[in-house]
Amino acid sequence: MERRFVLPVEEMPRRWYNLAADLGPCPPPLDPSTGKPMGPEKLAVLFPMALLEQEMSTERWIPIPEEVLEVYRLWRPTPLVRALALEHDLETPAEIWYKYEGVSPAGSHKPNTAVAQAFYNKREGVERISTETGAGQWGSALAFACDRFGIKCKVYMVRCSFEQKPARRSMMQTWGAEVTPSPSRETEAGRKVLTQNPDSPGSLGIAISEAVEVALGDKKTHYSLGSVLNHVLLHQTIVGLEAKAQMERMGVRPDVVIGCHGGGSNAAGFIFPFLQDKIGGRLEGLRAILAEPWACPTISKGVYKYDFGDTLGLTPLVKMYTLGSSFVPPAIHAGGLRYHGSAPMISHAVSKGLIEVQAWHQNEVFEANVRFARTEGIIPAPESGHAVKSAIEEALKAKAEKRKRVIAFNLSGHGLLDLSAYDAYLAGELVDYEYPQQAIDAALAKLPQVAEG
Amino acid sequence: MERRFVLPVEEMPRRWYNLAADLGPCPPPLDPSTGKPMGPEKLAVLFPMALLEQEMSTERWIPIPEEVLEVYRLWRPTPLVRALALEHDLETPAEIWYKYEGVSPAGSHKPNTAVAQAFYNKREGVERISTETGAGQWGSALAFACDRFGIKCKVYMVRCSFEQKPARRSMMQTWGAEVTPSPSRETEAGRKVLTQNPDSPGSLGIAISEAVEVALGDKKTHYSLGSVLNHVLLHQTIVGLEAKAQMERMGVRPDVVIGCHGGGSNAAGFIFPFLQDKIGGRLEGLRAILAEPWACPTISKGVYKYDFGDTLGLTPLVKMYTLGSSFVPPAIHAGGLRYHGSAPMISHAVSKGLIEVQAWHQNEVFEANVRFARTEGIIPAPESGHAVKSAIEEALKAKAEKRKRVIAFNLSGHGLLDLSAYDAYLAGELVDYEYPQQAIDAALAKLPQVAEG
Repeated sequence: MERRFVLPVEEMPRRWYNLAADLGPCPPPLDPSTGKPMGPEKLAVLFPMALLEQEMSTERWIPIPEEVLEVYRLWRPTPLVRALALEHDLETPAEIWYKYEGVSPAGSHKPNTAVAQAFYNKREGVERISTETGAGQWGSALAFACDRFGIKCKVYMVRCSFEQKPARRSMMQTWGAEVTPSPSRETEAGRKVLTQNPDSPGSLGIAISEAVEVALGDKKTHYSLGSVLNHVLLHQTIVGLEAKAQMERMGVRPDVVIGCHGGGSNAAGFIFPFLQDKIGGRLEGLRAILAEPWACPTISKGVYKYDFGDTLGLTPLVKMYTLGSSFVPPAIHAGGLRYHGSAPMISHAVSKGLIEVQAWHQNEVFEANVRFARTEGIIPAPESGHAVKSAIEEALKAKAEKRKRVIAFNLSGHGLLDLSAYDAYLAGELVDYEYPQQAIDAALAKLPQVAEG
Repeated sequence: MERRFVLPVEEMPRRWYNLAADLGPCPPPLDPSTGKPMGPEKLAVLFPMALLEQEMSTERWIPIPEEVLEVYRLWRPTPLVRALALEHDLETPAEIWYKYEGVSPAGSHKPNTAVAQAFYNKREGVERISTETGAGQWGSALAFACDRFGIKCKVYMVRCSFEQKPARRSMMQTWGAEVTPSPSRETEAGRKVLTQNPDSPGSLGIAISEAVEVALGDKKTHYSLGSVLNHVLLHQTIVGLEAKAQMERMGVRPDVVIGCHGGGSNAAGFIFPFLQDKIGGRLEGLRAILAEPWACPTISKGVYKYDFGDTLGLTPLVKMYTLGSSFVPPAIHAGGLRYHGSAPMISHAVSKGLIEVQAWHQNEVFEANVRFARTEGIIPAPESGHAVKSAIEEALKAKAEKRKRVIAFNLSGHGLLDLSAYDAYLAGELVDYEYPQQAIDAALAKLPQVAEG
C-alpha cells in the first residue's frame, strides 16, 4: 500500500460543505442590547455581505470562487499520509492517517479561510482588513491572503508576543502587512489601556477591540476573524473534503476522526464532511473527537450557553460551549487553543452527541509530538499535538482491544516557529496546569443572563 | 493550464542519475602526502563502501534502495509550480517554473542525501554518524535521516550559531541528535582551539575537524558530508529527475535551468538531469545557471585547481573551482553558500562550458525574495533567493527581448527559520559586501602546489 496520497490538482474539491444543511442551523446570534436575534445588516459594517450570507446559509454546498481555488492551488491539495512508522513504533493493529496542512506558505490550515475572506472583501470594494493576532498564526495567514488580492492588512499583535516572538511578525511584514503592537496609541481602546497601565503586555481581548474599532471607524476597512464563525468553519471544510476524496481513492474507511480544538475551525474543517456521512448513515459508528488542552477545557468543563465571543463583551451573544468570556486561560505553548468558547456549529454538533471530547496536558502532548517527530519526521505545531496525542491513545486502545481500527487526524500545522516550546519540553521545564476550576467557576458565574426562547 | 503539478507518488523516480556517465569522470582526488590518486580504501574509515563506490561510479543510473524511497515518500515527489503571479508582476512573456524542496520535514533539499547516507551507513553496521553544521540546515537534515534508521547522530555545531540560532538546534534535538557546540572539550582539535582562545566562536573548519576526529577514533562511527562529494550530488538528482518527469507530463520544455550555488549539491541535483539531455542533443541550446553570492564568488572569481576541501587541510586534494581553502567569506545570511570551493563534478561541467554563473549581492537577493513572497506566497531561504534573483533577471531579459522563454529554478528551501534576515532587510540593515578580492588573492597564493598529469 502507498504510504502517502496526494489528490491530483484538478481533483481538488470545488465546493465547501455546510453542516447546517444536514444538522440544522445552530441557535441564532442575539443582540445583547435587545436579547433578540441579530440580522446580518448590523454586522455589515464589519464583514462583507457574501460572508454574512454564508454565515446564515443552510445550503449544503457553497461553490468556491475560481479566484480562491487559484490561490489554494499554491499548496492544495495537501497530502494524506499513512503514519506507518508511528504505527510500527506503537505496535498497534490500527491504521493511523494524517492530513497535513503544514504545507501552506503560512504553515497551517489558517490560509484556507484567510484567502476566502480576503477575496470576498476585495470583491466588495474593501481596501483594508484589520485583525488581531496572538502568537501570529492567524495574522500571518491573513497577511499572506490579503497580499494575494492586493488588499491592505492591519494586524494588532499582542505586545508580549510582538516583542518575544518576532518570527511571525517578520512573516507578516514580509507579506506587506502593517503590524502594530497592542495596546497601541492608535485607538481609543488602546489609549485607555495604556493610560491605566503604560506597560500593559496586551491581550487578545484588547487587540480585538483595537481591530474592531478601526474597522468601525473607516468605511473602506473591514474586520476579519480566524475561527469560531460559521463561514470560517465552512471554508475549512476543504480539508475534510479532500481527505474524504483521498480515502475513497485509497479504499480507506475511517472509524475515528480527530481534530485539535481551540475556537474549532481546523477540527470542524476536518470532521464536518465526515459527519455528513455519519448523519446520512454511510459512516455509521464513526467517532469524531475534539482534542483540547486541560489548561483551557472549553467543552470538557464548559457549559452550553449564550455568551460573548470576546473578553470585553463587544460581540453578539452566541450559544456555545464556554468557560465564560471573562475566563483567562493559563499561558500554554499551544496559544491557538487558548479560547474560552467553542464555535457555535461545533457546540451544536457536540450537544447532539455527534462529537466527543478529550483533554490533555502540555507534557503528554509534547511527548506525543516528539514521538511523532521521531517516527514520522514532521515536527507538529503545539496545537496540532493535541490531535496527535488523541490519535496515539486511540491506537493504543485498539492495540489493547486487539482490533483493527482506522484513525484519521488533522495535522493542522508544523512547529518550526515553535521550537522554543520543544526546547522547554526536552529540558523538563514545561508546566502542566490542572484545569483552573476556580477561575472557570468565577467566569461562569458572570455569564450574561439570556432567556432562551 | 494548471498552475501546479505534483507527480503521483507511484511515479517518483527509482534511480539516481550520474552525470559522470555522460560527461566523463572528473579528475581523481589526490592523496596530499603523495600527490597520487587516492583509492577508496583510505576513505573507508570515514564512509561506507556503498557511498565510496557511488563516488567513483561511471554507471549512468544508480537504483535507489526501497528503504530510501520509503522515507522519500514522506514528502516526495515535491511540487513543480508555475509562478503565474510572479510572471504577472514582472509583465514578462517568459514562463517561470519552480521546483519546491521546502516541503521536506527539515525544510530543504538536504534530506535527499542525508536519508541515503544514513541508510547505507546503517546497512554496513555503523551505529553513529558524526557531522558538522553551521546554521544547522545540514545537521537538522542528518538528524532527521539518522532518526529514520535508528542510528545515532552527533552534530558539532559552530558555537556562535549554537548560541544565537537555537531553532535548528532544537530541531536536531527533537529528532534525537546529540548537538555539541564547537569548539568543544570532547576532541583534541577542540581542546587545542580552546586552549588558544577559550572564547572562540568556532567555525565550520573547526567543527569538521572535530567530527572527523571522533569518526576516526571509533570504528562504529562514520562521518558524513552534506555537499560537494559526487555521491551527495548523485542523491540530489531525484530533484531534477522529478522536475523533468513533471515537465514532460505538462508538455513544458525548459530554456533555462537555475540553482543556487554553495558547495553545489542542490544546483547539481536540479541541473544535472537536464544536462544529460543537453549533452544528448535533446535539449540543445539549454542554458544552465549557477547563482552564487558576491560575498563568496567561488566560480565567478575562483580558479579551477586542486585544493583542500576543508580549511585545515585534512581532506584529500580535489580539483575544483576554489577561492583557496584558507579563504573565509564574510558573514552573509545565506550561510549555506559560504564555501570556498565548488563540487568537483560541478566544476568539471563548468570547465566544459556546460554551466554558466551569475553572482548577486545580499540586498538584491532579499529584494527578489520579498517580491517572490509577495507574489507566490512562499518565503524562500536566503540561499534559494539567489536562484530566485537569477530567474527574475532572466525573465526580465526575455521581456526586454520580447521573447517567450521557459525558465525553471530550484527553490531549495523555505526561510521560516531565517526570518531575522528578512527583518534586517526590511529595516535596511543588510550589508552588501564587495567581493573580497584581497582576501581571495591571499588565499589563492596559498594553494597547494600539485603537478597535474
